[in-house]
Order: sequence, then C-alpha cells, then structure tokens
Amino acid sequence: MSATEPSNSVQADPFAELHSAVASAVARVEAAIRADLEHALDQCDPLLSEVVHYALFNGGKRIRPLLTILCSRGCGRDDDNLYLLAGAFEYLHVATLIHDDIIDRADQRRGKATVIAHYGITAAILAGDWLHARSMYLVGKMAGSDSLDVFCHATQSMVNGEFEQLRQIANVHASEQQYFKIIRQKTGNLIASTCAIGALYAGADPQQQHALSTYGSHIGEAFQIVDDLLDFQGNTAQTGKQVGNDFAEGKITLPLLYALAHATPEDKQIMEDLIQGDRTQRSAYQDLVANIERYDGFSRAAHTARQLVSQAIETIKTMTVHENGGQALHLLQMLAAYLLTRKK
Amino acid sequence: MSATEPSNSVQADPFAELHSAVASAVARVEAAIRADLEHALDQCDPLLSEVVHYALFNGGKRIRPLLTILCSRGCGRDDDNLYLLAGAFEYLHVATLIHDDIIDRADQRRGKATVIAHYGITAAILAGDWLHARSMYLVGKMAGSDSLDVFCHATQSMVNGEFEQLRQIANVHASEQQYFKIIRQKTGNLIASTCAIGALYAGADPQQQHALSTYGSHIGEAFQIVDDLLDFQGNTAQTGKQVGNDFAEGKITLPLLYALAHATPEDKQIMEDLIQGDRTQRSAYQDLVANIERYDGFSRAAHTARQLVSQAIETIKTMTVHENGGQALHLLQMLAAYLLTRKK
Repeated sequence: MSATEPSNSVQADPFAELHSAVASAVARVEAAIRADLEHALDQCDPLLSEVVHYALFNGGKRIRPLLTILCSRGCGRDDDNLYLLAGAFEYLHVATLIHDDIIDRADQRRGKATVIAHYGITAAILAGDWLHARSMYLVGKMAGSDSLDVFCHATQSMVNGEFEQLRQIANVHASEQQYFKIIRQKTGNLIASTCAIGALYAGADPQQQHALSTYGSHIGEAFQIVDDLLDFQGNTAQTGKQVGNDFAEGKITLPLLYALAHATPEDKQIMEDLIQGDRTQRSAYQDLVANIERYDGFSRAAHTARQLVSQAIETIKTMTVHENGGQALHLLQMLAAYLLTRKK
Repeated sequence: MSATEPSNSVQADPFAELHSAVASAVARVEAAIRADLEHALDQCDPLLSEVVHYALFNGGKRIRPLLTILCSRGCGRDDDNLYLLAGAFEYLHVATLIHDDIIDRADQRRGKATVIAHYGITAAILAGDWLHARSMYLVGKMAGSDSLDVFCHATQSMVNGEFEQLRQIANVHASEQQYFKIIRQKTGNLIASTCAIGALYAGADPQQQHALSTYGSHIGEAFQIVDDLLDFQGNTAQTGKQVGNDFAEGKITLPLLYALAHATPEDKQIMEDLIQGDRTQRSAYQDLVANIERYDGFSRAAHTARQLVSQAIETIKTMTVHENGGQALHLLQMLAAYLLTRKK
C-alpha cells in the first residue's frame, strides 16, 4: 500500500498515526544520543566507545525516551535538551539489559549477540557501569535534583525487584500479590520515573506529575505482563529469542499463576512437579504450556494487561491538559494501547 | 605501651595524632551509613540488605570518606550531613570493588570471601548497581548538581581507565606515560573528586577547589602505586590477598616499567619473555621479581610515590586556609604521608 492510498482498508495499521508522529521524535533522540556519545567518549578507549555504541544501537524501540518526551510535551515543554534527557532513559535501560544478560547468561538479544557474548564479561560489566553513570549525570544535569531522586529510587527499586524475583524462583506458592510487587519494582517504577521526570522537566503541577507517574506505572506493569506472555507465545523470528526462558529459569509469571489458581488439585500438582522438576526438558515445557492453556492462563493474563492499559488511559483522560499538550496526551493513550499489540 | 606513657619511644606511632583525630570522624561515617541503609533498605528484600551490609562492613579504611570530611572542614564546613555525603564515596568505592572482583574472578578480599564468591554473580552485579545508584543519589541530593557532574565524570573516567588497562595487558611496549594515564583515570580522578566535592560542599572558592582536587589526584596516584607495590611485596596475612596477581593478569605496573627501562637488552628480553609467557608459573614470577629488584624497580616506584605525596602536601601548604580549617589541612598532609606507609 502506498502512502497516498486511502487508509480505510481493514489491513491498515491502526497505529499509523502514532508511528508517524513518533518517528521524528525518535530520530531526534538518536541524534542527541550520538552527539552526546561523541562528546562524552572523546579521548576514551576505542573499545569502550565500540561496546557502548554496539549496545545502544541495536534496534531498540526507544519506548522510554518517547514516554519522557510525550509527558514533557503534554505538560507544555518541548525543546532541544528534552531529547537528550530522554536519551538518558535509554542509557539506563541498555545498562540494565547488559547486566541482565550477564546474569541470565544470554547469548542473543534482538537477534544479535549480547554484549557479554560478543565482548566478554569485563567489557559488559564496565560498559553497563559507564552507561549507568552517564544516565545519572544527564538526569541530574538536565532535570535537576528532584528528578535525580525519582530516578535513583526507581533504579534501587529495580534492583530490589530482581532480588525479590530471585527469592521466588521455582516457588510454587508465590502469590499474585508477590508477582505484582516484583513487576512494579522491576519495570513499573522505572517506566513511571521516565514519565514523572518528563513532567518534572516541564514544570508540571503535582496533579499532572502524579497522573503521568500513575500512567507510567500501569503501562510498565502491562508491558512486563506482555513480556511474560511473549516468553511463552512469542515468535522467535520476531522476538530474537527462544520461548520458555522464564520457565527454564524457574520464574513464576502471571499466566502460570493464573493457571495454578484455577486448576484442579490434580493438575495443580502436575504443574508444581514440572516447576520443581527438570525444567530444561522440552516435554516439561510443553506440558506446562498445555496446562496454562487449559486454565486460560494466557488469556487471563492478557486480560489483566488490557485492564492496566485501560486504567492508564483513563488516568490520562482525567488529567489537566496543558494548552499545547493535547496531541502528546492523545499519543500517550495510543502508545499504551500499542504496547498490548507488540510482538517483540 | 599504655596511653598514659610518654610517646617519645622510637616505636611510637608517628601517625598517632592522625589516628585519634580521624577515629571519631570514621565512627560518624559508619553511623551515617548504617542509618542510611536502614532507611533505604526498609521493605527491601532481606538478601539485598545482607549483601550490601556484607560488602560495606568489611574492615575498609574509609579513606575516601575521610578525604571528603577533611576537605570540607578545611574549607570551613562541618555538619551532620557531611558524614552521609562522605559515606556516598564509600558506597561507590565498594560498588566498584564488587564489580572488580567479578571481573578478576577474585575469591578473597581483606581476608574474607568476596561478594561474588559468597553470594554469586547475580547478587554481586545487582548489589554493585544498587550501591552505585545510591551513591549518585546521595551526592546529587546533598552536594548539588556541580558535585554530581564531578562525581559522574570521575566514574566514567574510572571505567575508561579499566578499558585502557585491558588494552595494555601483557604489552611489553607500554609506556610510563600510558601507565600514569591509566592510574589517573582509574584511581586519581575519583580520589580527586572526593576532595573536590568536599570542597564544593563547603562552598570553597575555585582556588581552594582546585588545590584540593590536585591534592586528591596526586595522592590517588601515589595510592595506586603503593597498591601496585603491595601486589609484589605485600604480606598476605596483612593484605588478605596473594602477591603476584598483577603479573598473572598481565598488568604492567610501575616497578616493572622502571625495570624494563633500565635493564640491559638481554635482561629486558628475559622480562618480556616472562610477561608474554606462562604467567601462572611460580618460577616465572620469581624470575621477574629478581629482575625488578636488580634494576631498582621497586625503590624507583616507591620514590615516585613519595614525590607525588610531597607534591600533594605542597599543594595544601600553599592554599588559602579557612579560619577553622587549619587542623583539617594539617591532617590531610599527615594522611598523605600515612598512605605511603600502608601495608594493606
């Protein structure tokens, strides 16, 4: 379909408006990041520069920077520095991915060798630390002390979420409440901070800050649930990674929790045995998936993600809009809905 | 010797004044750190809390916090928050030690199992990240945006120094200039930042900031040279680690560089062959040490460390002293001299 044809076909992308509206923002983030790296890595070791570029320019969707930009715009501020501030969230995100891939011993990310697989553990630890420091520097410099507080607390919370997740490995008695606490800490708080700091950057009032932070928290949790669903149902060609990693690692995610909650005692026991047995067996994974299907674990989890997105959208709808912020808030709503459809 | 005896014995500790003057400052840092952790780790996973405490309360000398405190006092400010700000430098220091021990696959530190050896790689990476984030938060919050800039740049520089060091592994053509560039980035800049931020916290004028930063840079480099000497000459019972690690890892440090620079072509070739050969052999290490001795590599490196300390002390002597800052600046001079004598 060419760009000039009418877009009333049923195959038309319902998010075409979102894509075209955000493309230029993402391009500005990329340019800001490249300029910042050129400056910050000037006179640095060539390998450090290579690793940082390798990790950052890897087909990432730049969702976090986009959230900062749209939240700032929604509260009335849009200037050049905003795109570099937004880039800082991508730095932190990539820093955590690099360190996560060490922890998970992951070889592939987005269909490409991970930093640890390509450059080894020393480069991976150090490049993650460099990006972490650079992200803090940019947030403190461009968005001020209150924003740095929010950012550092979200980072500390993320680490705590990872520890709590470790504690629940292969724990068949893990509760939904514990799952939601973990994803809020691992993902929700950091996404909320990208939104809150966008609002703070724009000088938003407390009600706007709170609304955008709440929006971020809800979509962050939805995002994590979709991630957990893709770990079962994703297409490897699209996600760039195998399915079943979470099960192999003993992570008890929402589809499984819902299935455990609704299964007959016999099937619950079967699932528990699978979780506590040899999780590297392909047949164990397949048996588990069949049981999750049987008790609608996937559709229940998808429903929960949709509910969270609906709450996020409602939060935006009821907040006070800056006179120039209408389109940005509209795009935030579309973005929330779009996150549900992602396949990678 | 009891405390009441006169201290004119030749065995008397020439640093007794330093020790007694700093003991209460160090105790206040410990108390500030404990209170901060209690607050920051409230409601956190017990394992995260355990790992952070294990890493932080490990017999560390608290040199970095002490520098911040003395530099701030020297510029006229001494209040409760100073001790927590000072603690932030210990957080960052410990974060880097935890990550370094992953990179070096180290089992022991100060005679105790390292975090990675005791808790595994996941806990080690994450606890390092937590302490890193917390240190940035505290510096930004308590010393402001300019201090955070200095701090983040020093952290980025440290990472770059590690990359440059990697590049020089087993490189027999490494120059003294490259060595000094690496230790300035790895150690000097961060120690300089602890001093500069102490000065900034006290509202020091640019001349004072510059003097204290220069002091920190010099003693940081001297500190690293002493570290490199201890890696050859340290007493395992005191340092808590084996000698010869640097050689085994292919790190070309100053005693070796000086020996290479002064050796006959034949002995230089022998040392180069040892560096590029099987460095795990005990006999290779012993042959190398004998050659370094032969060409005064150790005494030359120790001389350089003394020169750096003298420069640091001169810098302090010529700076403008705050009316209440005399004793602190005197202690900074003693501390510089003390660093040369350390055995661990």
